Amino acid sequence: MNIPDIDDVRQHLIAKPGQSFSLAARPTRDPILFDDKEDAKTSLKKDAAVINELKDMLYAHKKQSVLVVLQGMDTAGKSGTIRSVFADTTPLGMEVKAFKAPSKNELARDYLWRVHNAVPKKGNIGIFDRSHYEDVLVVKVRNFASAKDVERRYDQINAFEKHLTENGVVIVKCMLNVGYEEQGERLAERLVEPHKLWKFNPGDLEDRKDWAKFMGAYETAVERCSTEHAPWYVVPADSRTRRNAMIARLVRGALEDLSLEWPNPGYNPADFDIG
Amino acid sequence: MNIPDIDDVRQHLIAKPGQSFSLAARPTRDPILFDDKEDAKTSLKKDAAVINELKDMLYAHKKQSVLVVLQGMDTAGKSGTIRSVFADTTPLGMEVKAFKAPSKNELARDYLWRVHNAVPKKGNIGIFDRSHYEDVLVVKVRNFASAKDVERRYDQINAFEKHLTENGVVIVKCMLNVGYEEQGERLAERLVEPHKLWKFNPGDLEDRKDWAKFMGAYETAVERCSTEHAPWYVVPADSRTRRNAMIARLVRGALEDLSLEWPNPGYNPADFDIG
Repeated sequence: MNIPDIDDVRQHLIAKPGQSFSLAARPTRDPILFDDKEDAKTSLKKDAAVINELKDMLYAHKKQSVLVVLQGMDTAGKSGTIRSVFADTTPLGMEVKAFKAPSKNELARDYLWRVHNAVPKKGNIGIFDRSHYEDVLVVKVRNFASAKDVERRYDQINAFEKHLTENGVVIVKCMLNVGYEEQGERLAERLVEPHKLWKFNPGDLEDRKDWAKFMGAYETAVERCSTEHAPWYVVPADSRTRRNAMIARLVRGALEDLSLEWPNPGYNPADFDIG
Repeated sequence: MNIPDIDDVRQHLIAKPGQSFSLAARPTRDPILFDDKEDAKTSLKKDAAVINELKDMLYAHKKQSVLVVLQGMDTAGKSGTIRSVFADTTPLGMEVKAFKAPSKNELARDYLWRVHNAVPKKGNIGIFDRSHYEDVLVVKVRNFASAKDVERRYDQINAFEKHLTENGVVIVKCMLNVGYEEQGERLAERLVEPHKLWKFNPGDLEDRKDWAKFMGAYETAVERCSTEHAPWYVVPADSRTRRNAMIARLVRGALEDLSLEWPNPGYNPADFDIG
């Protein structure tokens, strides 16, 4: 068995804060981590169980929260990641938020308004399926905001995330890095599998046509917003099993860093006579 | 008649960004602006009318919002300011938010969570009766958060306000600077006037006992958080009439800076035949 240490996974996937970042240099199919698919399955299974236990401790303490940000092109596997990494986790204390095109009411405020509102409560794990990063990705590619406004958002996002991390939110940001070819196969699959057809959206093909622009926007977002307090991890996503195993390692690592234990109730249980 | 220019009022009341600030050096009864009380009444009346008109243009455009932050010790006149400065303004498009002690649900998030949520929609004027500054005022004086946490909040607040101003929110921050003696008289008045009794809260006397600590916390908050994008104005508040007149000048100034006009509808009204 060859399961990489959490620190190895981090070192391998991190976009180093303050350094230039090339997305093209990052594999969509990782040749080093989990070369055996069975190891990935074993690791994921173990991590999912530990994540569930640590999450219960987080919930019991209610001092901090963990926010997992999942970004990726269509079919990169945001939903699949949630299903797998949190396979053992009950919905209690979980907050999954999928960010779609903003409503009229949301557009009437600054773009972080709805995002801040969705930050998980203390004790909870929040998952953003897409996030405020769309405001420097699709918004940039489609010119939904001026270039000047988009340019200012990287610093705004860094300040926002710094504020959150200083106030008890641990942020784990994963870019699910799927390849152009693999996406093509997955989109085609959606059109022939009855249980996947509901996921197909003709608009996805428009984004696919602008693949290079999206990759450029991702590259800039990862480079500008990978910080000490909230680094980006770029996860090869062509293999679903390995992708899930790697993200499970990262989530487990974030929870382990909190050194959680069951909280001390502040009284002696032996003093109680239940009768 | 001697009505000071808006720029004079600003220059007189601003806590200059990046400079040290002494609250003790600031009068609670201003000897220079509005030496004639009747001038203050005249100015307020004119400004209230202009504010109403400009607010309608702001509402028609729906491009920006104005946020008036009112801070001050009890009896400093936060409510009275709202009644007077917006005497001519209909509630349509106005969002007044009074921040009380945070709820359990609010405490389960970072302290800016409820504040960000209450930021006014584009086109609206928001008024914060107390604000996120309580998180470096009463929270500091009563040790509701650690000194380390409070210390980090000044920069967090500056980043948050910068984000808002870069995203279309104009912030006008007014500290209503009431004197210790004047507060004593106003509190005593609340106990004998049947229509003011409801405003009396025995807890106010606890804050009064800690007057010096509160003044210290205000001084630090104003010094650390008076920025180019959102400066603090320290308004002498012992004279209600002059206080209202000065704040009306500041609010009018913020609206005038937006160079508002009625929006161009994008069509020629003459083209329509209503029939």
